Amino acid sequence: MSQSAQKLRIALDAMGGDFAPANEVQGAVECLRQCNNRFHVVLVGDEPRIQAELQKLDAKGLELSIVHAPDVIDMHDSPVTSIKTKPNSSLVKGITMHKEGAVDAFVSPGNTGAVTAASTLILGRIPGVSRPTVAAIFPSEQGPTLIVDAGAVSDCRPQFLYEFGVMGSIYSEYMFKKKNPRVGLLNIGEEETKGNELAKETFKYISERKGTMNFTGNVEGRDILKGHVDVVVCDGFVGNVLLKFAESIPGYLKFQFKKFADKSILNKLMIGLLRGSLREIFKDMDYTEHGGIPLLGVNGVTIIGHGGSPPKAIKNMLFRAEEVVEYKINQHIQEKLRGQ
Amino acid sequence: MSQSAQKLRIALDAMGGDFAPANEVQGAVECLRQCNNRFHVVLVGDEPRIQAELQKLDAKGLELSIVHAPDVIDMHDSPVTSIKTKPNSSLVKGITMHKEGAVDAFVSPGNTGAVTAASTLILGRIPGVSRPTVAAIFPSEQGPTLIVDAGAVSDCRPQFLYEFGVMGSIYSEYMFKKKNPRVGLLNIGEEETKGNELAKETFKYISERKGTMNFTGNVEGRDILKGHVDVVVCDGFVGNVLLKFAESIPGYLKFQFKKFADKSILNKLMIGLLRGSLREIFKDMDYTEHGGIPLLGVNGVTIIGHGGSPPKAIKNMLFRAEEVVEYKINQHIQEKLRGQ
Repeated sequence: MSQSAQKLRIALDAMGGDFAPANEVQGAVECLRQCNNRFHVVLVGDEPRIQAELQKLDAKGLELSIVHAPDVIDMHDSPVTSIKTKPNSSLVKGITMHKEGAVDAFVSPGNTGAVTAASTLILGRIPGVSRPTVAAIFPSEQGPTLIVDAGAVSDCRPQFLYEFGVMGSIYSEYMFKKKNPRVGLLNIGEEETKGNELAKETFKYISERKGTMNFTGNVEGRDILKGHVDVVVCDGFVGNVLLKFAESIPGYLKFQFKKFADKSILNKLMIGLLRGSLREIFKDMDYTEHGGIPLLGVNGVTIIGHGGSPPKAIKNMLFRAEEVVEYKINQHIQEKLRGQ
Repeated sequence: MSQSAQKLRIALDAMGGDFAPANEVQGAVECLRQCNNRFHVVLVGDEPRIQAELQKLDAKGLELSIVHAPDVIDMHDSPVTSIKTKPNSSLVKGITMHKEGAVDAFVSPGNTGAVTAASTLILGRIPGVSRPTVAAIFPSEQGPTLIVDAGAVSDCRPQFLYEFGVMGSIYSEYMFKKKNPRVGLLNIGEEETKGNELAKETFKYISERKGTMNFTGNVEGRDILKGHVDVVVCDGFVGNVLLKFAESIPGYLKFQFKKFADKSILNKLMIGLLRGSLREIFKDMDYTEHGGIPLLGVNGVTIIGHGGSPPKAIKNMLFRAEEVVEYKINQHIQEKLRGQ
């Protein structure tokens, strides 16, 4: 294992996921092999356990290093308190390293709430941003659609939603190569008089600030998978409910296919024949493809993944972090929002 | 066409849907044939146009009558104003007939907002109900799951959500034969401290009134299709977004299957072979099976359907109306909520 000062450096929270550190280590190894050591990965976590995982793999010559962080933050710890009480957790240590400039980005398949809170508290916000947002990537008939916010801020003000839209628009433009991304406000009707108080006020608020993004008006739940807009703006409560619902669809379909297959031998044969095709068809609904979702608005680069992330998802999260740094997403956000 | 005073009478808004009155008339005819004239259907709408549709079908001997209502309420009319300005619309006339006791239920595939507003204003509320709610029926691994509210009330108070839960529980018990239905509060985490202000307050409010329903705590978006509860309580904004999103899933899957089929002749053959099976597998996600969604809490029986309802959905809406009357759903709601 070697280190290189010139290369981009990404800290990976090796203890964050449900299968830590095995999946994290394997994902990092696969990532560096695939990109020929294009960047350097710092595995942050329990060193002996990480070493044990590395022993199982062929990690020689890879741009990997380990920073020991033995404390563990679990689901029941308060994120805010943990930052003070567990400075040697992989989460707090990794983000602190990023804050101090030792790494260029931080990636974690840990608890979304904890990663968001720790990133916001330690890294701070980009000037002009009221609340950082967690974006979710939905599939659609017209490519990836971004949902902001997907869970960072439950109770929102119009200004927050407006900023989510601007940040989502920048992410969509650079990461998904969408030109002048269409931004829609999630609502329960197309007319501007529709919706709850927040939606009505937000429609007005954004309409008065149209210059900063391509706001196309209200969209409904049915417009998301159609890809009628590139960025869907909503509060974090609605977004999180939607995200978790959407993520449960493949499991439900699998259940239905299994029920059908169990009805007869012919059915079983048909489904068996189609297994590979079904996997391909449902590929877009698979979160491991995108890897992780970005935390936008913090003064640094944080990519959040699923607790259950397989190595492939970890690998893709590292690539996402690299892109966010390379495309200077944060700088673009600051330029658009500062002084608004 | 004959009339019978003893039979249950259901008014059908024959002008409400996107394909009115063709689908409405055909649905009514199919319904009465299937149930051997078990009840009587009053087609409310433009008489000449309804007659013209009846001419195309064999409607002799069916329990059908027509009440002429030439006015049309369109999507752009304000529901509240329309009630005064368009008393001869099929919507206002049908509900007024129900209010006056001329029919036992009212069924409409029209604009949800207009049907809800007109029903609430004309029929009034069941004593003890603060806000009527539109329930949506979701499929799940454990049978139908009710989402209340699915769009009637965008800005809610904890009391409203509590009442939605009680009404949903009763509907689920009688209509879906679920014993002691499990009621969950839709949230973004399982712990009672999670969520937005409304969810936190509602958790407390319902917990203090547990006796009236089987409240099992918070549920997340991912629990819905799993069938972890029978009734999911949420505000009408979240519920409506979810409903419209869920309804768009079959179309998205169809798009993905088509894209896959278009890739090669072999793929096309495979999908062709599986067409019937896919239809069966996705049957539960098809709203036409349930027909319509009930408006709960109004002092009468109103079933609301999709604007695009095919005849089969219209038929099923009429059956749902019959059941709601027979099971005395409103009486059960009043018994539970009066004096709460």
